[in-house]
Amino acid sequence: MPHPILILVTPQMGENIGACARAMHNFGLKELRIVNPRDGWPNPQAQSMAAGGVELIHRATLFPNLKEALHDIHYAVAATARLRDMEKPVHTPDSAAQALHARSSEQSTAIILGGERSGLSNEDVVLADAIVTIPVNPEYPSLNLAQSAVILCYEYYRLTVDNGEITANALSCPAPKEALLGFLEHLEDTLERTEFYRSPDMKETMKQNLRALFTRASLTEQEVRTLRGVIRHLEGKRVSE
Amino acid sequence: MPHPILILVTPQMGENIGACARAMHNFGLKELRIVNPRDGWPNPQAQSMAAGGVELIHRATLFPNLKEALHDIHYAVAATARLRDMEKPVHTPDSAAQALHARSSEQSTAIILGGERSGLSNEDVVLADAIVTIPVNPEYPSLNLAQSAVILCYEYYRLTVDNGEITANALSCPAPKEALLGFLEHLEDTLERTEFYRSPDMKETMKQNLRALFTRASLTEQEVRTLRGVIRHLEGKRVSE
Repeated sequence: MPHPILILVTPQMGENIGACARAMHNFGLKELRIVNPRDGWPNPQAQSMAAGGVELIHRATLFPNLKEALHDIHYAVAATARLRDMEKPVHTPDSAAQALHARSSEQSTAIILGGERSGLSNEDVVLADAIVTIPVNPEYPSLNLAQSAVILCYEYYRLTVDNGEITANALSCPAPKEALLGFLEHLEDTLERTEFYRSPDMKETMKQNLRALFTRASLTEQEVRTLRGVIRHLEGKRVSE
Repeated sequence: MPHPILILVTPQMGENIGACARAMHNFGLKELRIVNPRDGWPNPQAQSMAAGGVELIHRATLFPNLKEALHDIHYAVAATARLRDMEKPVHTPDSAAQALHARSSEQSTAIILGGERSGLSNEDVVLADAIVTIPVNPEYPSLNLAQSAVILCYEYYRLTVDNGEITANALSCPAPKEALLGFLEHLEDTLERTEFYRSPDMKETMKQNLRALFTRASLTEQEVRTLRGVIRHLEGKRVSE
């Protein structure tokens, strides 16, 4: 599955170009194009900040203007903070990712980001098929270049992986209710025998609270065994006191 | 609406602490807690990288360990790249944001991030109510500390704003079909008069293609007027040739 190409237009700091490359690699993007970087190219700061993504810096290609960087691109979205007075669809990062993802198996796609000082010019934005705007705190909307790139790359990557897997993997199977109830009865018996309850009313309330608490915890069989061990141990201590 | 507190545990580089504060402010988070920063505190690099979020650096509070940083927190999620052998719910960033958001009007919540070198220890992770794992390219899962913070803050912020607004604002109303069809007829008449069509078949096919193309473009009334002007102009030129 091809991924969108990231195009940086007149970026200023090498550190930010490097951080973009690192984020691209974190989220599986593979190709970086750079239009007219302020500090020339290659840029040692870009290389060092790219960390594990330095290959993308080595393979990055340079263009004198956005038009040429877009020559073989079928569909591009331009990131801009300000709403332009321009007839373009405006996406949030997730809907932009969907638009890119829907096309990227058959079409060559790109995400365009402007430089640190003032972002993209209207002349550049008009070349894109759509605009993407990251929702930000209106009191401080100035996102760092690489941090904008992170969000856009992340939103794209999310669509290419099965998020469900991450959530599903980690939660083990809770113990069968028989094991859970066996433990609860063990606990209740122990409390009864060690005269924990000071009145029959207290006993009923406490039992219900303890059952609610331990059921809510979705204990595994191993955890049930651990708790039984703890109770047995504590009871043993009482007995030997 | 209160926001989650961000807790950085043994962060190393001031630059990353500053970048976290900037991202927090971009996405409306207000309180930063720092556990045992490697290079002491205050840290001038943190201040300069925080840019517009420098107030969060000034107000940041220091703690000797995570336990103390969590003293007044009701619900916390710990960011970790590796799946731990630990019975905790594991969230993706969006489901973690939902879990935090659902609680944050009544409870004090936190997002916990570990330092650059090795993230959070198991001892720290176990103090959290849940884990959040950012889906990343398995070939290069090493996310920069501040970039992890950006993603988690962004996911939280998305829930607090109406994304729909951004999408809805920018698309103007397309011209009424009458205006569009008036333009198309104008164009077709002009092409007819200037003998553009070389055969009746070609005329029908071309008319249909032009109608499809201009309809798909969702032209506004202003754009229809512009196109009419262009055609009138071009026709005038031909006439005067």
